[in-house]
Amino acid sequence: MTEPTPWPPLREELRGIEPYGAPQLDVPVQLNVNENPYGPSPACVADIATAAAEAAVTLNRYPDREFVALRQSLAWYLSRDTLAGILPEQVWAANGSNEIMLQLLQAFGGPGRTAVSFAPTYSMYPEYARDTNTRWVAGRRADDFSLDLDAARDLVKTEQPSVILLPSPNNPTGTALPPEAVGELCEAAGDGLVVVDEAYGEFRREGVPSALELLPSYRNLVVTRTMSKAFAGAGLRLGYLAAAPEICDAIRVVRLPYHLSAVTQAVALAALRHAPELLGKVDELRAERDALVTWLRGEGYDVADSDANFVLFGRFADRHAVWQGLLDRGVLIRETGPEGWLRVSVGTPDEMAAFRAALTDVDGERA
Amino acid sequence: MTEPTPWPPLREELRGIEPYGAPQLDVPVQLNVNENPYGPSPACVADIATAAAEAAVTLNRYPDREFVALRQSLAWYLSRDTLAGILPEQVWAANGSNEIMLQLLQAFGGPGRTAVSFAPTYSMYPEYARDTNTRWVAGRRADDFSLDLDAARDLVKTEQPSVILLPSPNNPTGTALPPEAVGELCEAAGDGLVVVDEAYGEFRREGVPSALELLPSYRNLVVTRTMSKAFAGAGLRLGYLAAAPEICDAIRVVRLPYHLSAVTQAVALAALRHAPELLGKVDELRAERDALVTWLRGEGYDVADSDANFVLFGRFADRHAVWQGLLDRGVLIRETGPEGWLRVSVGTPDEMAAFRAALTDVDGERA
Repeated sequence: MTEPTPWPPLREELRGIEPYGAPQLDVPVQLNVNENPYGPSPACVADIATAAAEAAVTLNRYPDREFVALRQSLAWYLSRDTLAGILPEQVWAANGSNEIMLQLLQAFGGPGRTAVSFAPTYSMYPEYARDTNTRWVAGRRADDFSLDLDAARDLVKTEQPSVILLPSPNNPTGTALPPEAVGELCEAAGDGLVVVDEAYGEFRREGVPSALELLPSYRNLVVTRTMSKAFAGAGLRLGYLAAAPEICDAIRVVRLPYHLSAVTQAVALAALRHAPELLGKVDELRAERDALVTWLRGEGYDVADSDANFVLFGRFADRHAVWQGLLDRGVLIRETGPEGWLRVSVGTPDEMAAFRAALTDVDGERA
Repeated sequence: MTEPTPWPPLREELRGIEPYGAPQLDVPVQLNVNENPYGPSPACVADIATAAAEAAVTLNRYPDREFVALRQSLAWYLSRDTLAGILPEQVWAANGSNEIMLQLLQAFGGPGRTAVSFAPTYSMYPEYARDTNTRWVAGRRADDFSLDLDAARDLVKTEQPSVILLPSPNNPTGTALPPEAVGELCEAAGDGLVVVDEAYGEFRREGVPSALELLPSYRNLVVTRTMSKAFAGAGLRLGYLAAAPEICDAIRVVRLPYHLSAVTQAVALAALRHAPELLGKVDELRAERDALVTWLRGEGYDVADSDANFVLFGRFADRHAVWQGLLDRGVLIRETGPEGWLRVSVGTPDEMAAFRAALTDVDGERA
């Protein structure tokens, strides 16, 4: 560093940047980070405690670096969504799907390589690219937030990205991707990886397939998932992916050794044993989501179709005022996405009633 | 990617590299990864289970992104080692000290910047540099593995590194760094950060101070620690650092949001409540270490002075044969460090007796 730098000597491109993250505010109704509103049952909590205790007995020892048991359990769980099934060697896991994305870009992106996605989309994607020194190119979605496949293919041909990030359903719009689009982009990508981020995949509407079904057809396809959302495990920080075994194997070169703690592995395994219970609320949340879309449209709002556990609605001349008005009434939602829109997570029936009442109130005040 | 690449399309510099990590073999006496041989007491295990259960009740919610309670507890713990005390805002934590190092190099290293250490030293350091696209320069230690301060200062002046990694005690040699050397390198580094890696700091011999005492004097000093070693928490994956609050704050720009799970935070807090018990074995391990050094020297081996819970000894014309001979007798040690040397962790009295018997046996066979 030959030139004088401000203190502390952060990298130039990081200076003045606010750390990523929604405000963590203590309000009665929290509908801002797409959490599952239903916690685990007492039986599940007890099983998690037992699992943690068993892991603690040998806590002085390093964990299984290859997390074999967890990979088996995740493969078993994913196999529900594809006739071809998923094998343990097709599975990789990390501390949250954001660590999954970081590892993918460390291994397959990096200096001299390009990552592509289509905006509006998840606002962490450019941060993963920045933190791995990967060039970042954002195409645009159509006005209804669907993917313009011709434009997307053209961008892929022009930019030759080594990684394409395709959330389905998309965050913050809730838009699912048709399987034909995934397949065509896998072909257009050549040797580039197509990462379909299914963080909210379990909430997709009836008849919408998972990209897991396409894995046997495209060796460059990666499907990521998380236990944070449908699985009601945001506090657990467990993300994972399914892909060709060669891709999982390649990630091992950049993963930090022992990146998944013995406790994380044990607790995730316990939660997976309770999958039917934890996922049992997904149908209720989907029904609540559909009712919310219907209600918002009835009130005259623009609402994006949603296959997720959140809904993007608008449009507001001053969305911040609406966000603040809701917060003043004890309802925290998220000011994110395209200008004029707001995003609300799907909560319990009581939480949604509180949201509807607060929004009606704010709207009346502004009329 | 315009040129044809092998499948999968890993970055060029990562191809053919074996993932980092010692062999995980199931043998009776494991003295290869410097674990603490003593697991937690039943009371500590029960407290950890209770903490995990409490975290599990709200596992559907994201964890405290700023891990305020954990930072307070770690600051309280570190304050034992310095009269000036350590404040919570001087503490940062991550999933293992390897994630700490990655974050430091993401924030303060990266393309166009240089990291420096002095070999022989911890073999993960160049991997952190590689994974963050930081240029890596390794100076040399003196023949007795101490730091040649004049040469070190010259290298720092020449290379102008933005990060200097100084383990104390050093791994795999066990060599502690005198505080004067740390201070002089902090001055020579200018705006560059000096990271003193005290992963094994608690095992230092009587009279050897911690670099924590120097924090009030040097704003560019960072001291890292881990709960894996003295704290007997290798399975927990909790690394942390103490530094100026501005440095902790800067790391927040590159940390993945919610990187520490609710369970990790809760279990680490429970373990910290049992600090006296978990650390109680440190004195026994130090005595066992000193006895091991004496015994090895008595047997005619070269042995590096050790302030850690491992000992580097040699020299062998064929160290692999000795390593294999020990493994054949159920004792796993580590083939690492300079050619001709081997590293053995300090275990229980029974484990050390098994090691001494096996080494005597192997040596007799080779004589």
